[in-house]
Formats: sequence, structure tokens, C-alpha cells
Amino acid sequence: MLLKRLLVGLPLKTAQAVHERLSKRLALAVFSSDALSSVAYATEEILLVLVLAGTAAVSWSIPISLMIILLLTILTLSYQQIIYEYPSGGGAYIVAKSNLGILPGLTAAASLMIDYVLTVSVSVAAGIAALTSAVPALFAYREALCLTAILLVLMINLRGVRESGRIFAVPTYFFIGMVLLMLGVGLVQVLLGQPGQSATSGGPSTPAAPVAEGLTLFLLLRAFSSGCTALTGVEVISNGVSAFKRPEPKNASLTMAGMAVILGTLFIGISALAYHYGVLPRENETVVSQIARATFGEGVLYYLVQVSTMLILILAANSAFAGFPRLASILARDSYMPHQMEVMGDRLVFSNGVIILGFFSCLLIVLFNGDTHALIPLYAVGVFLSFTLSQAGMVRRWLAKKGSHWRKKLVVNGVGAVTTGIATLIIAATKFVHGAWIVIALIPLIIMWFRAIHAHYAAVNQQITLERDHRPPPPRRNTVVIPISGVNRAVIRAVDYARSQASDIRAVLVNVDKEGTALTEIKWAQWGCGVNLVVLPSPYRSVMGSLLDYIEDLLKKDPDGWVTVVIPEILPARWWQNILHNQRALMLKAALLFKDRVILTDVPFHLER
Amino acid sequence: MLLKRLLVGLPLKTAQAVHERLSKRLALAVFSSDALSSVAYATEEILLVLVLAGTAAVSWSIPISLMIILLLTILTLSYQQIIYEYPSGGGAYIVAKSNLGILPGLTAAASLMIDYVLTVSVSVAAGIAALTSAVPALFAYREALCLTAILLVLMINLRGVRESGRIFAVPTYFFIGMVLLMLGVGLVQVLLGQPGQSATSGGPSTPAAPVAEGLTLFLLLRAFSSGCTALTGVEVISNGVSAFKRPEPKNASLTMAGMAVILGTLFIGISALAYHYGVLPRENETVVSQIARATFGEGVLYYLVQVSTMLILILAANSAFAGFPRLASILARDSYMPHQMEVMGDRLVFSNGVIILGFFSCLLIVLFNGDTHALIPLYAVGVFLSFTLSQAGMVRRWLAKKGSHWRKKLVVNGVGAVTTGIATLIIAATKFVHGAWIVIALIPLIIMWFRAIHAHYAAVNQQITLERDHRPPPPRRNTVVIPISGVNRAVIRAVDYARSQASDIRAVLVNVDKEGTALTEIKWAQWGCGVNLVVLPSPYRSVMGSLLDYIEDLLKKDPDGWVTVVIPEILPARWWQNILHNQRALMLKAALLFKDRVILTDVPFHLER
Repeated sequence: MLLKRLLVGLPLKTAQAVHERLSKRLALAVFSSDALSSVAYATEEILLVLVLAGTAAVSWSIPISLMIILLLTILTLSYQQIIYEYPSGGGAYIVAKSNLGILPGLTAAASLMIDYVLTVSVSVAAGIAALTSAVPALFAYREALCLTAILLVLMINLRGVRESGRIFAVPTYFFIGMVLLMLGVGLVQVLLGQPGQSATSGGPSTPAAPVAEGLTLFLLLRAFSSGCTALTGVEVISNGVSAFKRPEPKNASLTMAGMAVILGTLFIGISALAYHYGVLPRENETVVSQIARATFGEGVLYYLVQVSTMLILILAANSAFAGFPRLASILARDSYMPHQMEVMGDRLVFSNGVIILGFFSCLLIVLFNGDTHALIPLYAVGVFLSFTLSQAGMVRRWLAKKGSHWRKKLVVNGVGAVTTGIATLIIAATKFVHGAWIVIALIPLIIMWFRAIHAHYAAVNQQITLERDHRPPPPRRNTVVIPISGVNRAVIRAVDYARSQASDIRAVLVNVDKEGTALTEIKWAQWGCGVNLVVLPSPYRSVMGSLLDYIEDLLKKDPDGWVTVVIPEILPARWWQNILHNQRALMLKAALLFKDRVILTDVPFHLER
Repeated sequence: MLLKRLLVGLPLKTAQAVHERLSKRLALAVFSSDALSSVAYATEEILLVLVLAGTAAVSWSIPISLMIILLLTILTLSYQQIIYEYPSGGGAYIVAKSNLGILPGLTAAASLMIDYVLTVSVSVAAGIAALTSAVPALFAYREALCLTAILLVLMINLRGVRESGRIFAVPTYFFIGMVLLMLGVGLVQVLLGQPGQSATSGGPSTPAAPVAEGLTLFLLLRAFSSGCTALTGVEVISNGVSAFKRPEPKNASLTMAGMAVILGTLFIGISALAYHYGVLPRENETVVSQIARATFGEGVLYYLVQVSTMLILILAANSAFAGFPRLASILARDSYMPHQMEVMGDRLVFSNGVIILGFFSCLLIVLFNGDTHALIPLYAVGVFLSFTLSQAGMVRRWLAKKGSHWRKKLVVNGVGAVTTGIATLIIAATKFVHGAWIVIALIPLIIMWFRAIHAHYAAVNQQITLERDHRPPPPRRNTVVIPISGVNRAVIRAVDYARSQASDIRAVLVNVDKEGTALTEIKWAQWGCGVNLVVLPSPYRSVMGSLLDYIEDLLKKDPDGWVTVVIPEILPARWWQNILHNQRALMLKAALLFKDRVILTDVPFHLER
């Protein structure tokens, strides 16, 4: 307990949960880390595919990036409409469920849960890659570093992150500033015709890469799919509308537009500079690190870029720790997840969800050796599936609800639904063998799990709900049985307890050896508190059998009444001593657990040594 | 349960435990299998050591065997005196404890327990070796065959072996008859000057073995130590005196003498024939098998020798399954073993002891790959240590008790104590590095375990024993608390139960959300059976914390009274559903388990699906 308090902090009152209202500038920082941080790996992932077709194919990165910017524009317009329609929070689960029905809703929920796990794993892996690019000596320890980072974020989230706003603002704007500075300096160098400082004097992989595949349409689509990871996280603002200052939807919508502009600028800028400097992916240095090195040399500015990249990526992981438990609690409220996911811990955090997310993201890091490139193919499918379901839900909504300008809105969300739908298919097809199949196989399994839980809770409710005309039966008799094998303090304590509430009490002794029974009867006369002692014959020496028969008889005699079995139990002071005690009590409990109308009560006698 | 009945049989009445009284002929069969079966491996173990000094050294097997016969004579005379002195059973533990004190008694007990385990492992391994000698194709599966044999014997013993007498007689006399026939035929062949049939045409290892060591005194003593395994089991009759017909001691003593004569004859006969035929140990054929082959050729008689050898060895293993649980129950009665070892199962068998013995002997088989030779060095130390302690105990007894002819008796047991003592030292020294160290290290550990158990039970007794002037306090108040989070059938069932015996009942609801609380209060008015509903504030949302505080308050208000916490618990129909329920009940129980005066009562509500 003390340990928990030290790590997690003192409990917080419910009243302390009042939401801080965020200005647009702060909100941008809070909700954009996930989206903006994607630029740290998206360009690299495009190049990694193109380079398979040789160094010349790398020039395709520019048109592909522009395609993605187009997609970003469509998504932003679509989500702005969701913001106005769902001001209390429009996650894909809610939008899909309320407009398309349960199954699409659960599909969105399953994809989102997978996304959250991947956001943590990918962001942390990429953040650590930014670190190891700057300090190559740490490259060998990247897996351990990833796990450490996740545990750190996990711990912070178990404490609860209510200090949020201001703390988030620093690394987000620090990152935006550093990347813009890098792009600016890079642009100047381009205009002045200066070559990059290190790319040409460059690393071992800069010279022409070997050609592994032809430049096919499939390869271009695969590169596009990889680049789509730049768009992960753009929907986050639409979940948090209620945290904005009034008028919430308008401020949220404007913030979303601002975020999209920044994201687009950073992404196309990085892609352009990478192309200009002729940067190619390397195993142990990220593309952004190579660009920064080419722009700033080995100076302080280079390290600041790397640090800011790492920080915003870890912040992005952190944002999943807010989203996943919230989604899990919404699902638990709808009985699609275990109800304990709904329980807020004493730090106002859904602790169970936080721990589960931490566990699975660590698992992914271990399975994929903390390698960003290995994780990426799993990432975008789920994200784009939830985009598509959200947009499709909105289309359905406009068709049903209509309202002012509904046709225009229908077109916006319709274009969104179609483009994200196509993108989803492209990603699923081109990344299938590289890992997307895992996600595609997992989603139906998770949906089955949701439904099994839901069916169970429904069955339980049906069984425990009181009908309107339910009347409890008149009070019933209760016979208390205390099984004993001798007379001692533990037994007398149980008798003392039993007589404090019941009138019909019997101590029951199974006669396994005559001498012992006679001795017990004598002792009982002195210490038995006047409680009746019943001696059961036991031709088969089975203490258990005789007791069970006796209890069965009592149940038969009074077909309405309760039978309480009060078990004097000796609780040892040390755990290993348990094998020396209570074997019979344990067997008795196991035998009686499923008998209706039989209630077990342990009266513990605590040993001190 | 049905499975258990099928495998183990119907329960038996205590009255059915009446002992069958055995005639001398039957008793010899019942109690001698352990001792007689040793001849199946003892000669081989002697040869195995001697052959290290070259083929010529093998001739030493005859004088060594004669030494062992001398030791057998001394042991027989000594044990006959124990039979008269302890007609109700004179195991080494009892003799050593009653005459020498606790520590020697526990030392004997520890050695005996190890012996019993080794008797099973060695006998089964040797029995399977007899089988694989006859059917070499099975040699590769010896480990699996050993385990199967042990499990078979275990199963038979869990059923209880009351059919004993007659069933034992067959294989024992079968074995004696077959070996005597073999010795007779062999003797005739020797007299007629015929060479053995196969030993000369023999196997690959018959030609001069390479000389690995010099023929030192140490080597001779080591061979003698190996041969001493022939004497394991000779004490068994002294444990079973009470099973003989009247006059028990006389009949037992005569049977012992008869057993010794047979054992001596078989042993020296096998050693002599082995020498005559020039048989040397081979990895995959036993010495007895080679002799039988040399005597009878490949015919039916050869196979009968092998079958009878295997049967008596498995019977010997079976005898340990009678001895070990009996010893464990005697130790449990004296509080040196967990008391549940004293519990007879419903088939009149100390089932726990049987299972434990089976487990450890299987473990040994696995650790030593079912190889008799690897197990033998562990075997004789414990046996001879217990012999020595028994004899020493008798010496002490005569000195203290005197009585008629005590000087003569003193000399007999004195000689026994000294010779077995010397033998123990020889065995421990010569076999130390080959495995005896394991036993020598285990004995003190087992003694420590005995003493820890004893000390614990003594401490418990001290804590739970009622003093002569102990009076139970006057009846105390009992407040019943039913923690609820809503109103449903499970809750109402708990309320229904609670009001059947107590008067001061409060349902307690922690107010975590206002709406839910209001709804519950309305429902309570209709279905609450008139029981008070207490609503606890919960500024920190911690249901647990508020409940614990409330219970703490109740305990403080009435410093004598009990607080019963009645927990409505939903019992799911399937195990996996448990993760969807009762998390709170579990946490509450964990928190309250160690609170004095708080008694937990689950009222289960059984779900049907």
C-alpha cells in the first residue's frame, strides 16, 4: 500500500475531476501530439518502400506525400462536421454504433483498441529510434529502452495526468518550432544552392541502393500505405470537444484546421528536404535525424531536433493512455467489456485500462524487437477502418436526419467515406503479408469476445433482475452446524460467534475413534457454552461423508430453511504452515460450495506464531 | 468422483479392517518379497565393482558373498530378539525413539523414508531390467516401463490391498521355486562338468574386461557395500508381528529364520553359479538372466525365471507402499509429519502417503533414467543406518531393563549393532562419491523438516488449548453489514439469509453516483425486506475505502461485538466468467481477512448460464 501511494500518489476526490477548459493554443498542444509526431516516421516509411525499386524511384516520394496531404484535407473537413454533430465526443465507436448499428460499432471499437496499443508501441519505438540515432551506442539497448519508456508513461498515467495542458504545450511547440527551423534553414540552403553538410559526405547506405523490385503500381500503393501512418491521430480532437472553451465546436473545428495545416507543412517539408538531400533510410539512423544532421551539422541544434522528436513521440504514446481506458470504460458501460473497466481508481484514472494497455504495448515491443518498421504495417489498417466507419456513419446520419445544408455535408462525409474506404483497402491489400493480416484476423476475434461478454451480462441480468411482483418469502429457519474434531480455543470461538446470532446451533462431531469422542464429550460439557453436541456415527471413517449426509438430512427436513456451516479455521502466521492445517475445512468448503441453501462461514482463529 | 470410484473402488467400513491372521507359509510370502527379491541384483552389483580390477578379480565375489551371509545370520538373530520385545511392531523409528531418544528416532525415521522410496525405485528398475533382458527390444523404453509399473502399483494401493495373503504367495513361491530349480540344474551341470550353454558362447563383454583400477582393499570393501543390498528388507517381518497367528512372536521368529535360510541359499547359489559360468555384468542383460540363459538355454524355463524375477521385484515395490504410509501416519500421530498423513482414505488406506511415495519414486526413476546401478549406491546407507539404530536401541534396552538372559541378548544385539555400524561406515565411505552423499545430506534436512513441523504443532497447541479456568465471555452483539451496489435477486437473497438469524442488519451502499443511489433507494423501499439501508458518502469514489471505514467504526463503537459482513456473490456457471464478476467481493475479502472480530459470509447466487 505504501509503495502504491509513493508511486501513484494520494487519492483524489471526485470533485477534483472538474475539467480544465482549454484555449485553442493549449488544446492544439494537448490533442495534436499523436498526429504531429507521425511526421517523425511517415516519410521514412515511404522511402523504405520506394528504395526497393532503386534510388531513382525515391523521387516518387513527393507525389505520394502530396496525395497524403490531399487525404488529410478531406479527413479534416469530414471530422470538422463530426465535431459539430457530436460536441460531447464523437469517437468512431459512438458514431458508428449510433448511425450504423452494433456490429459496425464493435468493429470500430475493436480497430480502435488495436490502434491504441499500436500507437503506444510505434510511437515509443520511433521515439527511442530518435534517441539512438543521436547516440548510436544505445542502439543495442533499444528494446529495453522502449520498455522503460512505456513503464514510465504507465506510471505517470496511474498517477493521473491532470496537470496536462501546460505540460503538454512545451514539448509540442518545441517540436513544431525545431522542425520548422530545420525546414527554414534547409530551404535557405536549397535556395543558396548549398548542398547538405553530411548527406553527400554521407553514410554507407547513401550510394545507389541495390534494386530489389520493379517500380510497379503495387509498390507505389504500398509506399502510399506506409505514408498514411502520417494521418494516425488526426481524429483525436473530435474526441475531446467538451474540453474546449465556449463555443466548443467552433474552437475545436478551428484547432483541427490549424493542426492540419501544421501537420501538412511539417510532413511535406520533411519529404521535400529528404528528397533534396538524397537521404535514404538506414538501419540505425532515422531519416529525420539524417536531415537534421545535413541541415545543422553535429551541433546543438541537431540534438535539440532529436530531443524534441523523442519527447513528442512519447507524448503521443501518452495520449493513447488517455484514450484506451476511456474507450474501455465506455464499452464496459455498454457491457461489452468486463465491468471492472468502468471502475475509476482513487486517482480518477481507469487504472485497469491503463495497465492492460501497458501490458499489450510492451508485448508488441518484445515480439517485434522494438523495431518501428516491423510494427508499421500493422498500424494503419485499424486507423483507416475506424475513419471509414466514422465517415460512413455520418453519411447515414445525414440521409436519416437531413437538416440544414445536409446535401453539402453528405457530400463532404461521402467523399471522406469513399476515400478512406479505398485507402483502407489499399493498406489492407499492400500490407497484408507484412503484418496487416494479424490485425485483420484479430478484429473478428475481439468482436467475438465483446459479444460473449455482452451475452453473459445479459443472461446474468435476466437471472438476477427482480420482477415487479417479486416478494421475498417469509423469514425462514436457519440451522447452524459447527463441525468439530475436538475442543479448543478455535472451536469455542466459533461457538461464541454462532450463538451471537442464531438460536438453533449444533456442534457436530464425527465419531472416528471412541476414546477421542468420549474425551471431547467431557470437555464439551465444561466449555461448550450450552450448545448441543451431535455425535455422528462413521462406519466408513469418512468425516466428510458423514458430515455431508447430516447436512443433506437437515436440508431435506426443512425444505425452505437455510443451513449455515460455521467452520472454525486456524489461520497460521506463516504461509507455509497452511499445508499443516485446514485440509479438512478446504475439502468441506469445496464439497458444499455448490449446494443451494447452504451458507459457509469461516470463523478464523489467528495464530501468532 | 465417478472416476475415483472406478479406479479406487467403493468405500470400505472401518469394521472391514479386521486383520487377516497369516500362517507362517503365507506370512513368509507376504513379508519376504522385499528381502528375497534383492538377490536379483545383489550379485550383479558385486561383480560390477570387482570387474573394474579385471576379470581375475571376479573370484573375490565368493568370499564377499560369504561375508554377507555372515552378516545376514547376525541380523536375523538380532531381529528375532526385537520380534519378541516389540510384538506390536518394532520398526526402527519406534525402537530407536523408545530406547535412544527423539533424535536417533527421527534419524531412523528419515533413513526409513528414504529407503522406502529407494525400495520402490530400485525394485521396479531391477524388475524392468529382468523384463528387458528377456525382451531386448524393450530396453529403449525402460524408463517409461518403470513409471508405468509404479503407477500400476500406486493404483492398486489406492484401492487398498486387503486381498493380500494368497495373492502374494503365488509370485513369491514361484520365484523361490524357479531360482532353486535353476540352482539345482546348474549344480548338476557343474557336477557333470558341462559348461554353461551360452556364457561361453557368450555376449560381447564376456572376454577379459579392461582393467580400470587396482584390486585394492577399498575396491573389495566397495564390492562388499554393493552386495549389502542383498540384505535390504530383512527387517520387514519385525514390523508385522501382529499379523501372525498365535503365538505371534514365535511364529514370526521362525518365519524370519526360514526367510534367512532361503535368502542365503538363493544369494550364495546365484553368486556361485555366476562365478562358475564366468558371467560378467552387461549393460542390457542382468546377471541372473545370463545365468538362467546359461542354465536353461533360450527355452520356456528361461522366460519363467525372468517373469518370476520381475513379479517378485514389483511385489517388493508394493511392500514399500504398505510400509511408507504406515510410518508416515505414525510420524503424523507424533506430530512430526502433517496431520493429514494420519487420515485413512475411504478404502482404509493412508492415501496421502501412498501418493507421496509414488511421486518421489517416479522422480528418482526420471532423475536416474530407470538405471538400477545408478540407484544402488543411494540404497544401502539408509537401510544399514536404520539397522544400526535399531540394534543400538536394543543394546540400550537390555542395559536398562535387564530381565532373564539379558547378558546373552545384550551380546547378540551388541554384535548386531557393531557389525551393522561398521557396515554402515563402510557403505557410506565407499559409496560416498557414487551417490551416498545425497542420502547423507538428505537425512539431516528431513530431520529439520520433522522438527519444524513438530515445533509448529506444539506452538499451535499452546495457543489453542483451553485452560482449566477458561470461561467463554457472555454472548456478544453481532452487527450484520451487507454491502450492496444495487438491488437484484442476489442482493435480496443475501438479505433474506441475513434476517433469518440476526436482528441488527444494515445494507450499506456507497454513494458513487447520485442517480444510481436514488434509484437503489426507491427499489429498496419495495424489496428491502424492511432492512435499513445506510448510504455512505464517498468523496474519493473508493467503494472499498468507505466500506472499510464504516466497518472500522462499527468495531470501535462496540469493542466486544462481532461484525458479520454478508457478501452477495454471483457464482457464474462457467469458470472463465469469473473474471467478469466478484472483483469487488474478492478485494473486500482480502482486506477484511485479517481483521479480528470481522466474520465474512458469502451468500452465493448460482447462475445457470
